[in-house]
Amino acid sequence: MLARLVGGATEQLGARLGSGAAGVVQSALGNLPELFIALFALHAGLANVVQAALVGSILGNSVLVLGLAFVVGGLRHGMQRFDSDRARMVSTLTLLAAATMAVPTFARAYHAPAAAHTHTLSLICAGVLLALFVLTLPSFLRSRGNEEHAPPRWSVALTATVLGAAGVGAAFTSDWFVSALTPAIHSLHMSQEFAGLVIVAIAGNAVENVVGIQLAARNRPDFAISVIVNSSLQVALALTPVLVFVSLAFSTHLTLVFPTLLALVLLIVAILGAVIVNDGRSTWQEGAVLVGFYVVIASSFWWGT
Amino acid sequence: MLARLVGGATEQLGARLGSGAAGVVQSALGNLPELFIALFALHAGLANVVQAALVGSILGNSVLVLGLAFVVGGLRHGMQRFDSDRARMVSTLTLLAAATMAVPTFARAYHAPAAAHTHTLSLICAGVLLALFVLTLPSFLRSRGNEEHAPPRWSVALTATVLGAAGVGAAFTSDWFVSALTPAIHSLHMSQEFAGLVIVAIAGNAVENVVGIQLAARNRPDFAISVIVNSSLQVALALTPVLVFVSLAFSTHLTLVFPTLLALVLLIVAILGAVIVNDGRSTWQEGAVLVGFYVVIASSFWWGT
Amino acid sequence: MLARLVGGATEQLGARLGSGAAGVVQSALGNLPELFIALFALHAGLANVVQAALVGSILGNSVLVLGLAFVVGGLRHGMQRFDSDRARMVSTLTLLAAATMAVPTFARAYHAPAAAHTHTLSLICAGVLLALFVLTLPSFLRSRGNEEHAPPRWSVALTATVLGAAGVGAAFTSDWFVSALTPAIHSLHMSQEFAGLVIVAIAGNAVENVVGIQLAARNRPDFAISVIVNSSLQVALALTPVLVFVSLAFSTHLTLVFPTLLALVLLIVAILGAVIVNDGRSTWQEGAVLVGFYVVIASSFWWGT
Repeated sequence: MLARLVGGATEQLGARLGSGAAGVVQSALGNLPELFIALFALHAGLANVVQAALVGSILGNSVLVLGLAFVVGGLRHGMQRFDSDRARMVSTLTLLAAATMAVPTFARAYHAPAAAHTHTLSLICAGVLLALFVLTLPSFLRSRGNEEHAPPRWSVALTATVLGAAGVGAAFTSDWFVSALTPAIHSLHMSQEFAGLVIVAIAGNAVENVVGIQLAARNRPDFAISVIVNSSLQVALALTPVLVFVSLAFSTHLTLVFPTLLALVLLIVAILGAVIVNDGRSTWQEGAVLVGFYVVIASSFWWGT
Repeated sequence: MLARLVGGATEQLGARLGSGAAGVVQSALGNLPELFIALFALHAGLANVVQAALVGSILGNSVLVLGLAFVVGGLRHGMQRFDSDRARMVSTLTLLAAATMAVPTFARAYHAPAAAHTHTLSLICAGVLLALFVLTLPSFLRSRGNEEHAPPRWSVALTATVLGAAGVGAAFTSDWFVSALTPAIHSLHMSQEFAGLVIVAIAGNAVENVVGIQLAARNRPDFAISVIVNSSLQVALALTPVLVFVSLAFSTHLTLVFPTLLALVLLIVAILGAVIVNDGRSTWQEGAVLVGFYVVIASSFWWGT
Repeated sequence: MLARLVGGATEQLGARLGSGAAGVVQSALGNLPELFIALFALHAGLANVVQAALVGSILGNSVLVLGLAFVVGGLRHGMQRFDSDRARMVSTLTLLAAATMAVPTFARAYHAPAAAHTHTLSLICAGVLLALFVLTLPSFLRSRGNEEHAPPRWSVALTATVLGAAGVGAAFTSDWFVSALTPAIHSLHMSQEFAGLVIVAIAGNAVENVVGIQLAARNRPDFAISVIVNSSLQVALALTPVLVFVSLAFSTHLTLVFPTLLALVLLIVAILGAVIVNDGRSTWQEGAVLVGFYVVIASSFWWGT
């Protein structure tokens, strides 16, 4: 599939350019499908689908995929331990970034004077998130240096072609995906929130999801957790503010004023994620309860108005 | 008292059958008073007392009893450390299970489309919790193997008789307790929520409570915390869904759509519990603040409509 | 400035009397500006400014100052580790005390029967907090014994004079500060909540803030975090209940029934603080995101009614 091809090409790029630069490309390309889908959905006026998809990406990574990784890793290798500084730091950063993302919604819901200014507050919040992303980006590139890469097997031309083709492919697939989404929502009687939170979020994060679970299966829990939680962090720090600002050029603006339950879920999930990762141990039982938690949350959003 | 007798009989059973099987019986019997009280209360139409009692069990264990255990242990032995994998795992599982339990309430309160379907959502949530309990039960039985047991002093017949009698006794006591509860609520002018959250919850968890505090006093903080938090976990994973499904046969159905403050308290308490246990150290000051937190929460529910 | 002078005088006192007694004086004097400002503001009828300032002190310490300390410490010394029992214990106590402080607000917002009794509940809560402070005070004095102090350079008379003068000075400054506050609020079009949460809170905590950041810069992260989080703890355990009870003598009573968003921010900040400190590592990126989080929360309160 497309996602796997991009993954392969990025790995080749990493072997050639060094893992730092490859990290940028991998991050950017891993979020490319999400970005394209969100852009097409915003273009189609589905702002609430995109809002749900942003929260759903973090929920999907930090609950469903983390849970599946714990189940797979735990059933194969028993209790897994992960104590690396990187896994902890990424999970703490994700908690903080997700909590920041949730503030405008709480301000709208619980602070009457701010309710009239939520659009401004949403832009301030997006600006702060983007500034944090730009500030911290260089250090993340450097700190990625100790990942392992196989020697390059593809030529530069092949890698570039694959990546270019993948970009175009992602755009086309995303367009098709979004245009197929609306009829699917109607025929299955699911809500737009459910479509965004579950369907779009899982589709958009396919690469990281598969990679994270595979790493857990290979008993590399530290790396698995870094990849999974890092994907949540990128959604909060990069994808979200970029979409907010890009949407200013569209007729449908994206704001960070979510439906209240979405923001609450986002905050709860971020706290749970940080507690689970700081805990430093995982078992398949923990994974199973995470998956159960995901099922109940997803069910809550099934019904539409 | 009854609770102590059941505890003694279970220990005898453990010495005879092996600690794994004894774990099942101990868990089941430790929750027997709670189960009976809840059933009689549901039969008497007191669904909101039962809802409060479920949250109150988790609150009582993870805040009041944990606090008392910290105070007793801390005053006798100074700062206590607990770093066992088991204590951490149980507290993480409890956090996740309690968070799952709270989702239907938040969906009702903060997501209009789900409000019309909360009964269905409540059943889904109960189903997920029960499935998680059934899935994880076998592994819990096995992992209990390293607890210590004295050699059996009672005969099989005596043990069986005591346990059987205790079951019948628990049923009678619970019946009497519930029938005495309603007049007591009226004469003391307390709310039904307070009765459930404080009175029923403490009465129903007497065994685990005493055991947990005794273990802390004997400077076995890891074991104490496992017992205390495990009791919360059983309420969320086993007692709650069983009561939801059994109540379908009654005229008063139990749902997991709690009053909002109860669900919020449940979530906060679960998060605090996990943070405190992951912290890995306890002092009597921490215990004192936990007890103070319990007093303030209990006070909030004193007033009825 | 005044704050620095008090700090110097306290250090001299510590060198003379022993660090235990100095701890009391330092705590009391460190909170003196806050106390005076709050008293003058209550006298001027600005109860909502004082409420916001209490939450703002905890927010300022546990988010802004902790964030700045992480940034300064991280940029100078790379990843900093802090694993002392004291830092963890103080952060856990702060979490519990702040959660207790938030209960009356949640009871008002989410539990109709309690809404009519919030004043009583607020007094119960303040009583519990004050009792906890009195109970735990002696142990805190003793455990401060291992801080380092330079030998005394000032005479007893000089120290006493400086401290006495500082007290009078703090009173005058606070009076001037509060009387200048109301016109400033009007001319800058900021809300009273913003004035309390940001301006008053930062002004009132100047001493601890500077000390905490300096300690982080000198690569003493454990001590820095103790000082910073301890300041939050004193606000919750000592300053808040004292102000509630003292305000009973005023025409404007201070209650612990905050605007909902303030209580929510208090709870979230306390949870984040505990997770971050239990994490045991800090980087400048974490600090930057903390500062960003502070900016977004402060922005939410900018607009007034």
